[in-house]
Amino acid sequence: MSVIRLENAPSVIGYAAVVGRREHEGPLSDDFDLHDEKEKFGMDTWEKAESEMQRLALNLALAKAKLTGKELGAIFAGDLMNQCIGSSYAAECSHRPFFGLYGACSTFAEGSVLGSLLVDRGVFSKCAVLASSHFCTAERQFRYPLEYGGQRTPTSQRTATAAGAFILSAQGAGPYVREVLPGTIVDMGITDINNMGAAMAPAAYDTLTKYFEETGKKPEDFDLILTGDLGKEGHGIICDFMKNAGYDMSGVYNDCGLMLYSAATQDMHAGGSGCGCSASVMAGHIMKRFEKGTVRDVLYIATGALMSPASLQQGRSIPGIAHLVRISAERGGE
Amino acid sequence: MSVIRLENAPSVIGYAAVVGRREHEGPLSDDFDLHDEKEKFGMDTWEKAESEMQRLALNLALAKAKLTGKELGAIFAGDLMNQCIGSSYAAECSHRPFFGLYGACSTFAEGSVLGSLLVDRGVFSKCAVLASSHFCTAERQFRYPLEYGGQRTPTSQRTATAAGAFILSAQGAGPYVREVLPGTIVDMGITDINNMGAAMAPAAYDTLTKYFEETGKKPEDFDLILTGDLGKEGHGIICDFMKNAGYDMSGVYNDCGLMLYSAATQDMHAGGSGCGCSASVMAGHIMKRFEKGTVRDVLYIATGALMSPASLQQGRSIPGIAHLVRISAERGGE
Repeated sequence: MSVIRLENAPSVIGYAAVVGRREHEGPLSDDFDLHDEKEKFGMDTWEKAESEMQRLALNLALAKAKLTGKELGAIFAGDLMNQCIGSSYAAECSHRPFFGLYGACSTFAEGSVLGSLLVDRGVFSKCAVLASSHFCTAERQFRYPLEYGGQRTPTSQRTATAAGAFILSAQGAGPYVREVLPGTIVDMGITDINNMGAAMAPAAYDTLTKYFEETGKKPEDFDLILTGDLGKEGHGIICDFMKNAGYDMSGVYNDCGLMLYSAATQDMHAGGSGCGCSASVMAGHIMKRFEKGTVRDVLYIATGALMSPASLQQGRSIPGIAHLVRISAERGGE
Repeated sequence: MSVIRLENAPSVIGYAAVVGRREHEGPLSDDFDLHDEKEKFGMDTWEKAESEMQRLALNLALAKAKLTGKELGAIFAGDLMNQCIGSSYAAECSHRPFFGLYGACSTFAEGSVLGSLLVDRGVFSKCAVLASSHFCTAERQFRYPLEYGGQRTPTSQRTATAAGAFILSAQGAGPYVREVLPGTIVDMGITDINNMGAAMAPAAYDTLTKYFEETGKKPEDFDLILTGDLGKEGHGIICDFMKNAGYDMSGVYNDCGLMLYSAATQDMHAGGSGCGCSASVMAGHIMKRFEKGTVRDVLYIATGALMSPASLQQGRSIPGIAHLVRISAERGGE
């Protein structure tokens, strides 16, 4: 496992985030391109709504990049729904080469790693990366029927109703994907589905320490280190782990799951999760901060919990993974 | 969409196929590396058995390539189970960078496309591609509880209990991955889950005609054109479609779903399907034929049906996809 440097650093030339009501009511509201307070996006089922949300995110990102879908060499997409139907129905009208991914909440980073590697190496001149999740599709698939109104434990995270899209290009004015580090599966034996942060934090630790060891960089070299969605539980764990390993991330570290909702006014327990959580924070909020120049060098580490309801019922623990993507305003330099 | 030529054509330096009872009893029996007539591979659930089958396929392929897992730059893997747990639990003990894929029955080709592109372009010097399916995990997830003994319609295919693994390397004596053509989603409105061949055939047609048009090649230029698992229904459809488009594939065309079982002695209706079907036929039978020299140039087009039980319940049609991989005994030439 090693950090892969992208010598031709692909540019993020288009980006868009589409969200539901709670995400629109949260602190990052101004940075999203589109929301639907009914969360159905004109569809008659939640599953169709999630696909539509992902399709809209792609089209908004294409419009911002002043491209038509035809100019995309490939689409990399994934979601949480069984058989990843959110992505396949979203992509079917684009008629572009399609790579379906499953990385749970790490999907947007997994797609960004693959997409930027293939653009960097000249296979595609442009590609799209997409990921989505929807509270209502996830809740009934992974937990309880929505009508049941199940109570959530304090350590549980809320699946974000959100989709994010990146358009990566060999040409462009940045920000640039400079380095990537694909993640390794880490399973520390956590079996509590209501504490995904704890299951995923060791994977984030694994990827982050490898990155710092190999590059010789330190947390303070970055404007922001952003984990996908470890939430409150995982945030505490990763901070402790990193501190014990000699890396003090205080002041530069945040988590997409903690940024998406307001802890003070929105009762979201341990924070947000789902493929759409970090996808919308990255493709909405963080890209806007790059535009404004308030960040210039960001480490994005999206974590995924690779279990299923069936694997947990069978007593298996939760495998975690964390893919790292470094995005910078500058193409070169350190 | 265009054919991508691999100038440094990665070599398939290791390959292995692990199968269940029916596959072991079929006509390709001698070409598989390992079987378990109990189909549990020492595990206590079918889901764990599928993971174990995939893990064994990886280890067998690594042993044949005289490699340890540590030498792999990445693993590309997928399966049919919800949240792709077959692959994540199979890969967790290998501790290598992991890319989870979802391409339904096209997964082995999707992984081969991504893996060979990244080896070709020097990102990884070696990587593994894995895919699996298990009749018992698929049956209860997609259709009926096993104990119910549901009757199958004549057009339905049987999910193969099988796993296949490729080890791709920048160095090696072949066979080589010479060209790839990633597939586009094609949805012709088929809604019959018991006729997946019909849903996937248009995608195979789309990919194959694009390949022949763009390269100027003809079916007879190849020793074998092999679709993933269109089965009997899809086989008939694709032959008709291709003939109408001016491409006569008779004599060089076969389908993994039709090769895996004996139509005469095994009552498998329209044939085999599942990610493991074409994975085991390619990584078992076809690689053995390359060894013996009875094929030297093969077009492998794996098809996938990207729906879910939920999308069909909601009245959606079945999106199909087909990824093409050309494997040749020669690295260069036409």
